[in-house]
Amino acid sequence: MKTNLLEHIYNPTDLRQLDEVQLPQVAQELRNFIIGVVAVKEGHLGASLGVVELTIALHYVFDTPNDLLIWDVGHQAYGHKILTERRENFHTNRQLNGISGFPKRSESVYDAFGVGHSSTSISAALGMAIASNLKGDFDKHHIAVIGDASIASGMAFEGLNHAGVTDANLLVILNDNAIGIDPSVGALKNYLTAVKEGKNPRKNNMIRSLNFDYSGPIDGNDIFAVLKELKRLQKIKGPKFLHLITTKGKGLQQAEDDQVKYHAPGKFDASTGEIHPKLEENLPPKYQDVFGLTLLDLAKANEKIVGITPAMPSGSSLKFMMDAFPKRAFDVGIAEQHAVTLSAGMATQGMVVFCNIYSTFLQRAYDQVIHDVALQNLPVIFCLDRAGLVGEDGATHQGVFDLAYLRCIPNMIVYSPLNEIALRNILYTAQLGLNHPIAIRYPRGRGQIVDWQKPYEKIEIGKANCLKEGTKVAILSNGTIGNNVTLALAEMNHPENFSHYDFSFVKPLDNKLLHSIFKDFTNIVTIEDGVIKGGFGTTIVEFAAKNNYNSSIKTLGIPDEFIEQGTVNELQQYCKIDVSSLSTIFSSY
Amino acid sequence: MKTNLLEHIYNPTDLRQLDEVQLPQVAQELRNFIIGVVAVKEGHLGASLGVVELTIALHYVFDTPNDLLIWDVGHQAYGHKILTERRENFHTNRQLNGISGFPKRSESVYDAFGVGHSSTSISAALGMAIASNLKGDFDKHHIAVIGDASIASGMAFEGLNHAGVTDANLLVILNDNAIGIDPSVGALKNYLTAVKEGKNPRKNNMIRSLNFDYSGPIDGNDIFAVLKELKRLQKIKGPKFLHLITTKGKGLQQAEDDQVKYHAPGKFDASTGEIHPKLEENLPPKYQDVFGLTLLDLAKANEKIVGITPAMPSGSSLKFMMDAFPKRAFDVGIAEQHAVTLSAGMATQGMVVFCNIYSTFLQRAYDQVIHDVALQNLPVIFCLDRAGLVGEDGATHQGVFDLAYLRCIPNMIVYSPLNEIALRNILYTAQLGLNHPIAIRYPRGRGQIVDWQKPYEKIEIGKANCLKEGTKVAILSNGTIGNNVTLALAEMNHPENFSHYDFSFVKPLDNKLLHSIFKDFTNIVTIEDGVIKGGFGTTIVEFAAKNNYNSSIKTLGIPDEFIEQGTVNELQQYCKIDVSSLSTIFSSY
Repeated sequence: MKTNLLEHIYNPTDLRQLDEVQLPQVAQELRNFIIGVVAVKEGHLGASLGVVELTIALHYVFDTPNDLLIWDVGHQAYGHKILTERRENFHTNRQLNGISGFPKRSESVYDAFGVGHSSTSISAALGMAIASNLKGDFDKHHIAVIGDASIASGMAFEGLNHAGVTDANLLVILNDNAIGIDPSVGALKNYLTAVKEGKNPRKNNMIRSLNFDYSGPIDGNDIFAVLKELKRLQKIKGPKFLHLITTKGKGLQQAEDDQVKYHAPGKFDASTGEIHPKLEENLPPKYQDVFGLTLLDLAKANEKIVGITPAMPSGSSLKFMMDAFPKRAFDVGIAEQHAVTLSAGMATQGMVVFCNIYSTFLQRAYDQVIHDVALQNLPVIFCLDRAGLVGEDGATHQGVFDLAYLRCIPNMIVYSPLNEIALRNILYTAQLGLNHPIAIRYPRGRGQIVDWQKPYEKIEIGKANCLKEGTKVAILSNGTIGNNVTLALAEMNHPENFSHYDFSFVKPLDNKLLHSIFKDFTNIVTIEDGVIKGGFGTTIVEFAAKNNYNSSIKTLGIPDEFIEQGTVNELQQYCKIDVSSLSTIFSSY
Repeated sequence: MKTNLLEHIYNPTDLRQLDEVQLPQVAQELRNFIIGVVAVKEGHLGASLGVVELTIALHYVFDTPNDLLIWDVGHQAYGHKILTERRENFHTNRQLNGISGFPKRSESVYDAFGVGHSSTSISAALGMAIASNLKGDFDKHHIAVIGDASIASGMAFEGLNHAGVTDANLLVILNDNAIGIDPSVGALKNYLTAVKEGKNPRKNNMIRSLNFDYSGPIDGNDIFAVLKELKRLQKIKGPKFLHLITTKGKGLQQAEDDQVKYHAPGKFDASTGEIHPKLEENLPPKYQDVFGLTLLDLAKANEKIVGITPAMPSGSSLKFMMDAFPKRAFDVGIAEQHAVTLSAGMATQGMVVFCNIYSTFLQRAYDQVIHDVALQNLPVIFCLDRAGLVGEDGATHQGVFDLAYLRCIPNMIVYSPLNEIALRNILYTAQLGLNHPIAIRYPRGRGQIVDWQKPYEKIEIGKANCLKEGTKVAILSNGTIGNNVTLALAEMNHPENFSHYDFSFVKPLDNKLLHSIFKDFTNIVTIEDGVIKGGFGTTIVEFAAKNNYNSSIKTLGIPDEFIEQGTVNELQQYCKIDVSSLSTIFSSY
């Protein structure tokens, strides 16, 4: 190997000093650098490996940051970060006070648009391109790099549909590797596959129908082919579309062979690619597996059950049901809006629909929850994974708004299980029939009960439970954060002062128990893994106001700001809802 | 004219007794019936006239309600309602306790899915079709009728993309009339126009790329052509797509000639089609015109201003700016998600973006508001028309959730102007630069100030105002509903007992004034034109709890249920926020 080139590249200006023939070496070094850091520090691997050549070529050909480059979702932007002034900080990726795992405007001028959720890049780049036209800057380039899973989402279509009738200087690059986090699905994916296999001549191209100048498909891992095409496109005005074929995980054999596992493999051996085995014996289950395994179990007994996920079969563990009952469990792609209204349509025909969407992504289908499900009072069972603070994915992915935005919807039941057994039992209860839609929200990661597969018990809708009796202060918790309360109380000098109630139901509220609590206690503390403003604590405050109770109420949860990345525990500390902070707060009573 | 056929048709079973040759007469009678009622009772006209033949043909050929028929949006479903057991009640359309202006499951078994917002029909019908397959019913038909404006929305694409890889017995009928409420826009519209003009041979069809069995385009106002094609498609399994060309307003010359005006023309002469002139002299302006005219005025002086509407140039009055500055004002079609992120992209480049979306439709872009605008703290100016109770459009369109779902988002400013002058001044203030996104929400209909075009005054962000001083009770209102408070107080025997404060800003709150109010008053009443749960009143309750104030707080607004159609005043009465109800409530103090 020749002298290391990468270590002399601080930003793209340095990259552009190199000869084209040196770029394959840069690609090799960049790939090794990504593998080396992610192997130790964890993060998203496969996506960035697949676009190493594209990343280099884009920064080599275009005048970033003057030309504006947007990476859709951003899983694939590690190479971009490393080439744009963040190589030395890259080891802090996804850590508290480190760099974000996603492009972020406040982090770098090279990050033209903050991303995290999918399919925003075309709209954002088009907005920038129109702005450039209005400012008289007709030479600036505006580039959206989007994967084939993301471009199938409705929002991307809306962007293309608009862009096609503008003269915006927009380049959409389709990074087609036939996989998102899980393999891509849908008719468009099949169409793109046919295009790649030469079954659709260029003149028939669907993208051309939307008035884009289409070119491709070309091999996106062939750096010289990509350079040549980018230079050609650089000279063409108006909306352009380049179809690249890449391989996710390119350059690390195991990552190419098991693209789902190596999307975010955790720690692994940088030289062999082997994932370090985790000691999983006797660990409590992941909440997603409590969902996935319980649903599978219920589906065996109740043939009306169907499962739906928008592109998260692995992440939600719906894959268990998909494997066992492929006709009754559906990955609909990155299409949250469709997923929810599809669920509503099925529910009208008497199906028992479990629609699993990460809390942060249900924001994409808010109108469908209101207009198609709740307004018709259809008993769709929403399972919101990754609710609350999610940790390393950071501000774009915190599932902290759901309680606030769901509880204002008429007809909704909103429930946060305290633990794995409660999650299991509410899934059981929901499929018995509730006559209302329900949102069941539970966190990322593992619970705390190894022996969780107990016989099913029906949960009484709207009922709260006293977990611990005490005399002076009533602590009302919602969901798994209640376990922090239990731990904090165990550390108190005078635990007898504290009552602890599990208010899993944010809606309907257990009014009867609340009346008795407000009559017995002058000090009340609420705690939730969600925004304070408008969330669970607010329902308690509303109850008190409505009933003219004058007890002092302290509401704990996520403050009114976007919470960046860190471990869940670090973020809980920041929000003062970790065990230690709770102890301190409780001690003040 | 022969014997009236329509009056003998109670439901489609009767229709199917007729010979095909009688159907043109039914079409003529149905058209006259719609015109006759809508001329007097008002409502949506043009869309239903355009699909008279399709409506009859669908119910004639298919076995409704066993076969499931979904009308996208539902503006076009008047003929459907009249043929399905609601002819005699049709005169109650859109009235309090009357039939809904949209298909509604609780109203009729023939309304397979409740609609109102666009682009839901394909997803819902697909859900039903998959459910039928799972239930072993392979003969049932599932039909979505969707317009060319609605099919361009991302959600519809998501539905098509999924349907194309299923064996669902789904028939999507594209009702292509090149217009929604305003003329359709976008690359897909241009493509469809080219198809209609024969410029794209059938084998190249974009829809075929999504694996649909495509047929058409055929003349949708030729009932025999439609019947023939529906019978053919009835025998084909799997996803099918029929492209119909219709004329919006068909059969009423003025409605064909001015399709925008005759979308919902108000009262008109049934025989001549002439719209009854309204006496508009000296009326206060519509809020939408305060927006539209003020924006035009501001745009003349500030060249960074751009305006964006998703398919509502007429309804939002953005058309004033579109006419004057066509390069700076954009109708992006029914694409709320795209509209918001496009706005964000423009804002990154220093444009001053006014993004006008009806309150109820912003629900479609909730994630984009959070993830693309607020998280990056981009100063997009959201103008939410039709906020609060909207009246005759009913439950699907009430803009009552916005305060609750927006105020929990960090960085947002949320403002409801008290009147036209306040709206005008906040628009002026916002374009001066706020360093935060702002949502400005104002109601449907007219204000009360004829002479509203006063010199601009800058509004202090977060400041509330005392409108009236008093001694015993503090009334805190948000937005135009405050004018009901003023009227109610004017009727009181002891108005001196009541202070009235205009809290236009739900966020940030005027904490200073609130502290003084809570120190001075033990009785506080809040009132808003939005849901009580989580809205403005809740912010006041949260403030009190946080600061340990014990004043009694009564929160008035929309209760926790979906509010059906009626006049705004009737709905305010139902919610007890009309002038008379307020008088009664205030008198109780």
